[in-house]
Amino acid sequence: MVKEDKIASIADLASFCKKNGFVFQSGEIYGGLAGFWDYGPLGAELRNNIKSLWWGAFVRKREDVVGIDGAIITHPMVWKASGHVDSFTDPLVDCLKCKERHRADNMLEDVGVENADALSIERMDELIQKKKIKCPKCKGDLGNVRRYNLMFRTQVGPVESESSISYLRPETAQLIFSNFQFVQKINRMKLPFGIAQIGRSFRNEISPRNFLFRDREFEQMEIEFFVHPDEYNKCPFMDEVNELVLNAYSSENQLKKQKMKKIALKELVKKKIMKANWQAYWIAKQYYWFIELGVSPDNLRVRQHLPDEKSHYALDTWDIEYQFPFGWKELQGIANRTTFDMTQHMKYSKKDLQYFDEETGKKVVPYVVAEPSQGVERAFLVFITDSYRKENSGTKDERVVLKLHPKLSPIKIAVFPLLKNDDNLVKKSREIFNELREHFETFYDSSGSIGRRYRRMDEVGTPYCITVDHKTIEDNTVTVRDRDSMEQMRVKTDELVNYLRELLSGKIKFSK
Amino acid sequence: MVKEDKIASIADLASFCKKNGFVFQSGEIYGGLAGFWDYGPLGAELRNNIKSLWWGAFVRKREDVVGIDGAIITHPMVWKASGHVDSFTDPLVDCLKCKERHRADNMLEDVGVENADALSIERMDELIQKKKIKCPKCKGDLGNVRRYNLMFRTQVGPVESESSISYLRPETAQLIFSNFQFVQKINRMKLPFGIAQIGRSFRNEISPRNFLFRDREFEQMEIEFFVHPDEYNKCPFMDEVNELVLNAYSSENQLKKQKMKKIALKELVKKKIMKANWQAYWIAKQYYWFIELGVSPDNLRVRQHLPDEKSHYALDTWDIEYQFPFGWKELQGIANRTTFDMTQHMKYSKKDLQYFDEETGKKVVPYVVAEPSQGVERAFLVFITDSYRKENSGTKDERVVLKLHPKLSPIKIAVFPLLKNDDNLVKKSREIFNELREHFETFYDSSGSIGRRYRRMDEVGTPYCITVDHKTIEDNTVTVRDRDSMEQMRVKTDELVNYLRELLSGKIKFSK
Repeated sequence: MVKEDKIASIADLASFCKKNGFVFQSGEIYGGLAGFWDYGPLGAELRNNIKSLWWGAFVRKREDVVGIDGAIITHPMVWKASGHVDSFTDPLVDCLKCKERHRADNMLEDVGVENADALSIERMDELIQKKKIKCPKCKGDLGNVRRYNLMFRTQVGPVESESSISYLRPETAQLIFSNFQFVQKINRMKLPFGIAQIGRSFRNEISPRNFLFRDREFEQMEIEFFVHPDEYNKCPFMDEVNELVLNAYSSENQLKKQKMKKIALKELVKKKIMKANWQAYWIAKQYYWFIELGVSPDNLRVRQHLPDEKSHYALDTWDIEYQFPFGWKELQGIANRTTFDMTQHMKYSKKDLQYFDEETGKKVVPYVVAEPSQGVERAFLVFITDSYRKENSGTKDERVVLKLHPKLSPIKIAVFPLLKNDDNLVKKSREIFNELREHFETFYDSSGSIGRRYRRMDEVGTPYCITVDHKTIEDNTVTVRDRDSMEQMRVKTDELVNYLRELLSGKIKFSK
Repeated sequence: MVKEDKIASIADLASFCKKNGFVFQSGEIYGGLAGFWDYGPLGAELRNNIKSLWWGAFVRKREDVVGIDGAIITHPMVWKASGHVDSFTDPLVDCLKCKERHRADNMLEDVGVENADALSIERMDELIQKKKIKCPKCKGDLGNVRRYNLMFRTQVGPVESESSISYLRPETAQLIFSNFQFVQKINRMKLPFGIAQIGRSFRNEISPRNFLFRDREFEQMEIEFFVHPDEYNKCPFMDEVNELVLNAYSSENQLKKQKMKKIALKELVKKKIMKANWQAYWIAKQYYWFIELGVSPDNLRVRQHLPDEKSHYALDTWDIEYQFPFGWKELQGIANRTTFDMTQHMKYSKKDLQYFDEETGKKVVPYVVAEPSQGVERAFLVFITDSYRKENSGTKDERVVLKLHPKLSPIKIAVFPLLKNDDNLVKKSREIFNELREHFETFYDSSGSIGRRYRRMDEVGTPYCITVDHKTIEDNTVTVRDRDSMEQMRVKTDELVNYLRELLSGKIKFSK
């Protein structure tokens, strides 16, 4: 009987990631900088795999989505128009004694206030008084709550002045809106269609926390899906997603303190809990993306934002949430942004950015029915958390294994000579390694016992290991060892590439 | 006789890129922000292809290079240790009348002073007086030259103070140095080995110019290749590169005003013009990368930095230069940074970051013999400039074609029904399109005449177009049309995927 433990805490997850070279604190040799992270070799490859799988699924394989790659620093009027200069703020409170600054909503949530970030600052002041909250650092009295802008500011050009202030983008979305008309016209796109982008964004969080979960520099994978404003409910692809049954937690359920329940997506649409079926479609497609990459549906739910929780631009927002070691938290938000952003950019740029509808001969403001917005880092955390197992069969044979979907695995195949000092085994292993690396991300290792080499590969999620032994020299077969079952079988070397390709693509399953 | 014109100027290149949706000025609806660019759908795909080909060649296919993905904002001491806080500056001069700021070296180069950026600021003052240079804007007198730091500054955290100032990285390299020891130990790397990174960097250039060539936000593809300090001349792979013959322009040739000449790499090494053969190897590998992706060797040269032109950290630097429409300019720099950076980080962090040499039992400071540092944007400019042709056969049949290497092409295959209103042709075309897109980046187009559709695909570098016509319905063959020769041949639909795969991989050539 094998005992399986999941990862116990976010601190364990962080130390696992560091130990295996996935993630380091940025500038660690100087004590680190809170909220900034550097990804080591395997972490960088996992990130690359996440991004290219997302881009493949939602851009390259779709005719109705094109991608862009916008600048991190753009014209500051973009952020005035979007509302970020005026309202992209967090509630902060100063300690009157030690002068330390704290996030008021976090302190309230720490004492049990739910959705504190949706409260007014007056209400926060009241609750801080009522709950007798003091400075967490020095126990001093706290001042009044104030709002601070989360955008990082910088100066562009050699002259320091108000007009040269610009911002690091807090979201990639606005680069899509500001380029909407160029992209639509030059690429002759017709509504409905989407524009996608992957890229770094920055938020000057007051208290970055939970490892990669809330960091100051992060990478977004976003789509703005534009429809004709009269057609937000006319998605022709609902048959692709209607059969989905998922954990759902509507705002009504939350308000009535009911439990979330498993429900078919089509019921949510039929009952108008999800109001725009294009939005329902995108929620489902994003949800499926995680499921198809191996994430357990038990650890996922969709949760509708409460009326007072929605951003200023959103008509209806659903989060896909994941059950992290620190609770159910947002993995991805899918907002219905309506015509808000395009209207704002028309107003501030004084340009007509409307879409010309060839069929009716009329211009319309394009309507963003769904903005799937996913952080690479949160996906990264989910894939590691969900696939991590500490297996203990009661003997000393404990192992840590990342049961990552092979498409995500940084290393697909490892090749080992049984003995590192046997020239024949080494030569043969190198031949096999050199052939396999033409096809797959392959790693060669000759150091330590075979058991130890297997364990190292288990821990970083390598699905298959190949061992070259004396029998290989005799009959040209090798041992292929499966990460998840730890079973082994012998395969002829000249069939190896095809066999591994079929295993990795999921066409066949490993079995003895 | 076909007349072939290359791109005439950088302005023509910029308007070509805008017209085809490759590149837009960032924030253009607000008048744009100088030095920042947004990449449209085809530009984003070309960037993605450049990055993944580079990563594939220099990281994934090599056992001796691993990748990382570091943060754009890191601990500010990193930039103190690297020397950037104190010496990463440009010489600026203010107009005493209109107060406009200008780059002194650029103004001197505009009046014929060579390598002005290597001059001392005192010498620049002298030359400005001597050459009677005035403000380009108002013809006013100029003040004294001063040095301005090129790093973008920002505040991290909610409290504004000196200690919360940090910088947007001006190069990715320092993230590699500051993580060197973590990566080396955890990944059990042995010297010689390299660490690579692709990511955005930022320089607050005073006068961004030449379209993407000198921009404020750009993306670097860098390798730091570390060797044992006694072994910078012991590259075991010289047979891979010795046969290379290239345009070379040594510092001695430049000082003596001799012309560059074609010379074998092995001669450069033998004559000790290139002093470290590991550096020669990396210059050659990077040079080959461009050649293999179709860039004409006539438009490339390697040029050694003059003694007074080298950065403060470099022992010897070579640039790979390209003949741009505005002259020979740096495409990539390959510096020998010695132990400078690692020594600085040891000094500032007070940590022992040395490498433990298992063979000798001694610790050594790792030596960076070569730092191939390539900007994605400059590679982007080169691939477009080098493959652009305006072909005119004397009739009205002028066409613009991007003869991009198929691996770089944003779209690999286009599928056209001959007529957009013929249901049978459309149905068949969609079938073929749906099959091909499983294998290649494929684009469907039914709008406009076939000739016009071909021209659109030529202009964005699509190597092959498939036309479905009435004969297709009869005998299941389609027309495959070759971008470069404009020749056409018929291919059976059931052989199409394999045929195109072999064409695109270069295994077979297109011929009737």
